[in-house]
Amino acid sequence: MNDGLAPGKFRVHASQGAARTGEFATDHGTIRTPAFMPVGTAGSVKSLSSEEVAGTGADVILGNTYHLWLRPGTSFLRERGGLRRFNLWNRALLTDSGGFQAWSLSKIRKIDDEGITFASHLDGSRLRFTPESVLSAQRDIGADIIMALDECTPSDADHATAERSWNRTLSWTRTMAELWRRDPTAHGHGQFLFPIVQGALHDSLREKSAREAAELDLPGNAIGGLSVGEPEADMYRIAGLCCQILPETKPRYVMGVGTPRNLLELVDRGVDMFDCVMPTRNARNGMVFTWNGSFHYKNASVAADERPIDPACGCAVCVAGYSRGYLRHLFKAGEILPLRMATLHNLHFYQELMQAVRGALCAGTWSEFKESTLRRLEGKGEPPP
Amino acid sequence: MNDGLAPGKFRVHASQGAARTGEFATDHGTIRTPAFMPVGTAGSVKSLSSEEVAGTGADVILGNTYHLWLRPGTSFLRERGGLRRFNLWNRALLTDSGGFQAWSLSKIRKIDDEGITFASHLDGSRLRFTPESVLSAQRDIGADIIMALDECTPSDADHATAERSWNRTLSWTRTMAELWRRDPTAHGHGQFLFPIVQGALHDSLREKSAREAAELDLPGNAIGGLSVGEPEADMYRIAGLCCQILPETKPRYVMGVGTPRNLLELVDRGVDMFDCVMPTRNARNGMVFTWNGSFHYKNASVAADERPIDPACGCAVCVAGYSRGYLRHLFKAGEILPLRMATLHNLHFYQELMQAVRGALCAGTWSEFKESTLRRLEGKGEPPP
Repeated sequence: MNDGLAPGKFRVHASQGAARTGEFATDHGTIRTPAFMPVGTAGSVKSLSSEEVAGTGADVILGNTYHLWLRPGTSFLRERGGLRRFNLWNRALLTDSGGFQAWSLSKIRKIDDEGITFASHLDGSRLRFTPESVLSAQRDIGADIIMALDECTPSDADHATAERSWNRTLSWTRTMAELWRRDPTAHGHGQFLFPIVQGALHDSLREKSAREAAELDLPGNAIGGLSVGEPEADMYRIAGLCCQILPETKPRYVMGVGTPRNLLELVDRGVDMFDCVMPTRNARNGMVFTWNGSFHYKNASVAADERPIDPACGCAVCVAGYSRGYLRHLFKAGEILPLRMATLHNLHFYQELMQAVRGALCAGTWSEFKESTLRRLEGKGEPPP
Repeated sequence: MNDGLAPGKFRVHASQGAARTGEFATDHGTIRTPAFMPVGTAGSVKSLSSEEVAGTGADVILGNTYHLWLRPGTSFLRERGGLRRFNLWNRALLTDSGGFQAWSLSKIRKIDDEGITFASHLDGSRLRFTPESVLSAQRDIGADIIMALDECTPSDADHATAERSWNRTLSWTRTMAELWRRDPTAHGHGQFLFPIVQGALHDSLREKSAREAAELDLPGNAIGGLSVGEPEADMYRIAGLCCQILPETKPRYVMGVGTPRNLLELVDRGVDMFDCVMPTRNARNGMVFTWNGSFHYKNASVAADERPIDPACGCAVCVAGYSRGYLRHLFKAGEILPLRMATLHNLHFYQELMQAVRGALCAGTWSEFKESTLRRLEGKGEPPP
């Protein structure tokens, strides 16, 4: 695939409007973009083995620095040669900086100019995230793509608050970038640092943030602070605005998003990478995604439904022919089997969707593909009328 | 394998003392004996897909009539052509009669000469198990081997109580056998009824019970009421005593047993079939079985252990190389992945053990195999000194 593309480099194969398809090279394989990254919170994508995740077609998964820091601990992982030696995931790995979890999970949190002090959600013990400690943790974990420490602001933060916050994030990012440039490796492979654009919903601040992030000239760029409660239209506007500023020559990653519809709309605005707990978490809550929309397999309405989740799906669960009614029965009986069956299906679907997105962009049929897919996704597991 | 053996027939290939290896034919494949049947309580072996269970080498699984009666319901299964059409298990299936669950799970229970009335442990609704209703339920489920309704007695039941109880069980079994002989099929395939010997720990009553069960001339015979709290020596004595009476020409099944050691000791006394929740339930509670004994993978002592559960094991988890430390980490993090990894491993080990038992019996090395294996099983995951 990567045909000589050096690790850390991005290449666009085809584009249509702002949307594009390409590849980002790492020492653990090429990430085909647009890419969806399953979330492997505590070192595994919940309920699935690493081979199963690879089997869904994922080139890259995300690990949470915050969770791995707490358990099994980053020094534990360093001594073992990194997370990949522990969870046997042999493709690309991205770790976040932990900033989002410090913001969303910890009740006790104090931010100063040097970092974030907060209490572990597990045992209340004090933790300190600084550009130095977060870089060090991500080196221990041994990700291919690592993220700058950021302060996530609520979507309704006023301009002054959001600007103060961004200035702090920018300062942390500069510190981290400087340290990273001195040694952009871990466990003998390359690591590629991405800054995270912030700025709440203030267009001018987002533009400033995107410009300043881009000026750091790091291997890729991320957009954070979206999908945190704001209207979808705002998310699309802000992401689109940032994409117009972030360089075309580097991948753009919107963090923590989203629904199949969100992915299509954001690809259309120039986003290349995504991660989200939605396909995995919703699977465990009784919901599945299909090309014809999502539905709750836990509902009584599917009790007698003998069809697979999606008769046209190529995942192992649908191909074997396990029925919606069987999954519903097992879910009601409190079994864990349907949770992983639905997880496998949902991740397979997300990867199939991204594969189709890449295919449409290569074929020059993106606009038609996007419109017809958005219509199909309105069904509730049935083709829309 | 079965080489013309008619469904419902048993053939012994080799024996040494009371121990023997053979096969029991069904319309859904041959059951190689001695056989261990994983327990598929609610229509699935907890945490595993039917393909995965088949992959461990199991020829037959057990389904619980009581649980399937409550959920999804036996008429639901009848309308769908049986459990196998629902859970996609395409090898042999055995269902118990529900008598044991009515005894062990229900707080409100009333036994009369015609059957057992009790309350569902789910919603308290009244249920009635009679020879007729239990046969009908097992026809709906569509098992290959079905069990007679029995009253399970505590191991400390006095002789008079145990005899009264056995007489009732015998009467139920006769009624059921008569009904079964009129139509020994379900969903177009054969069904084979086994009576269940009872009699608590009273030798003379167990002998009487075994004789009377044998006289019914059904396709196989089971021994119930063991492993319900009595000393292991009593279990071995009672099982051995029953095996001496139950005909050699039919499979002998000890219900609800047991540890690897139990299986070896009981095979040695002439038992051909086993079922037990131990490998699956213990897996979910953090324990794994190996040729070198069992250990708790949830314990802190394995946190830094980089070896697979059993480096010599051929299961997918051990072959992939997932470490004891990784399973422990995931268990502590509350993940469901280690539960199924341990389940897959444990079932693989139980099947590997039974395969080795059959091999030793064919090779005429049973006694040596048994003694050396019992010694190895004393290790706690390490070869014993």
